[in-house]
Amino acid sequence: MSHSDRRLSQTDRTRHRRLREQGSEDRADLDAILSAGFVCHLGVRVDGDVLVVPTVYGSDGTTLYLHGSVASRSVVAAPEETVCVTVTHVDGLVLARSVFEHGVNYRSAMVFGTPRLVTDPQEKLAGLRCLTEQAAPGQWGYARQPSRKELAATSLLALSLDEASVKIRTGAPDDGDGPDARLGLWAGVLPLHARWGDLEPDPALPTGVEPPPHLTGRQGTPAS
Amino acid sequence: MSHSDRRLSQTDRTRHRRLREQGSEDRADLDAILSAGFVCHLGVRVDGDVLVVPTVYGSDGTTLYLHGSVASRSVVAAPEETVCVTVTHVDGLVLARSVFEHGVNYRSAMVFGTPRLVTDPQEKLAGLRCLTEQAAPGQWGYARQPSRKELAATSLLALSLDEASVKIRTGAPDDGDGPDARLGLWAGVLPLHARWGDLEPDPALPTGVEPPPHLTGRQGTPAS
Repeated sequence: MSHSDRRLSQTDRTRHRRLREQGSEDRADLDAILSAGFVCHLGVRVDGDVLVVPTVYGSDGTTLYLHGSVASRSVVAAPEETVCVTVTHVDGLVLARSVFEHGVNYRSAMVFGTPRLVTDPQEKLAGLRCLTEQAAPGQWGYARQPSRKELAATSLLALSLDEASVKIRTGAPDDGDGPDARLGLWAGVLPLHARWGDLEPDPALPTGVEPPPHLTGRQGTPAS
Repeated sequence: MSHSDRRLSQTDRTRHRRLREQGSEDRADLDAILSAGFVCHLGVRVDGDVLVVPTVYGSDGTTLYLHGSVASRSVVAAPEETVCVTVTHVDGLVLARSVFEHGVNYRSAMVFGTPRLVTDPQEKLAGLRCLTEQAAPGQWGYARQPSRKELAATSLLALSLDEASVKIRTGAPDDGDGPDARLGLWAGVLPLHARWGDLEPDPALPTGVEPPPHLTGRQGTPAS
C-alpha cells in the first residue's frame, strides 16, 4: 500500500465478513490503534501448533517491528510463516437491556504477513529504537544503547503493514430502539481506562538519582 | 488435571524453555490471571492462515468458555483445531539502565487445546452465564436472558484448562547490581493501571432509570 492510498487493502484475510459496521478501512484508524499501544499478540505456527505470544512492538507507519531472543521459538519460526499480529485496546463494557446485546467497546488491528528477519545493522538499530521509543518515549536517548553482543542476542522482525484489518466499536448499546427498551432497565457503557501510575524507583538506586522529565511527565496520563 | 493437583501440567507446549524465572507452574496463578480479565486473544488456523481474534471469555476454574456468532470463521474453525488462547495483563514498563534490559511487567496465561462445541442447552446457558458474569458481574440476573432464537444464533466453545502455561514478571529492573548501575541513570518501573470509569447512560434511556448497585459499585475500581 502506498502512503497516498489512505484506504486499507482488501484481501481474503482482511475483508470484513461479519459486523461490517465495526470494520474500518481507514488507514488513519490503523495508525491510531498501533500508536496507542506497545504490546501485541503474535500468532504463529510453531511445530504445527498455534502459539499466541504477547510481545512488545513498534510501528513507524509502514512497518511493524517485533523483537525477541534469538532463542525464542516464536521469533525463530515467524520468518518462515504467515503470522497474524493483533493489537487490541478495550475501552469499556456495553451494558444492554438483553444479555445477547452485551458487548465490548474496543479498537483492534490485525496485521497479516510473513515477517522479515532484519540483519542490516543500521536497520536493526533503527527498528529497536522505534520499538523502544513506542513503549518508553525518551528512553533510547537516555538509557545505554545496545552493545554489539546485545544486538547479536536480539532478533528483530519486520512485518509490513500492507495487509491489515481494523475493527472498532464505540458508543451505546444497540437495543435502545428495540422492544427491550420497554423493559425499564438501565443501559449504557462502563468505560475502562488505562493510565500510567506513579514511578516506582528501583530499590537498588542510590539516593539522589532523580527520574528524567520524559518519565515524570507520563505519570497519571492515559496509556492507550 | 485434577483439582487436588495445584501444579500446572508439563507438556511440550507448556514447558518453559526460556526466561524460566518468569514461568509459573502454580495453578493459583493461572486462576488469578483468568479471573482478572474478560478479553482473551484466540489463536486459530482458518483456511491455512493463523488468526488472532480478541474475544470475551469466562472461566469457571476448570473450563474456559468462548462464544461467537455461528457465522464467525474463528468460532466455526476452532472445534476442529488445536487453539491457543492467551490472556495478558500489562502491569507496567520496566525502565532499566540499558535499553537491552528494558521490559514489561505482566501476567500472562496461555491455554492450549481443542475446544468442544457446547450443544447441551443447560450447559450452554451455564457457559454463557459464566462468560457474562465474568465481564459484567450481576448482569445475567439483571438483563433479559437469551431467547431460544438468540441461543441458536450463538456458538459456545468450551476449552479445558488442563494444558496451560503461565508467565509473570514483577518488580524492578534486573541491572541494579551490574556494571550499568554505575552509569548514574534513574531506573525503576512505570506502573500501568486499568480502572473502570464513570457509567455513561445510553442516550436512548428514559429519564429516571437509575443504574443498579452492581454497576455503580464498579465505578473507579481496578479492572485487572
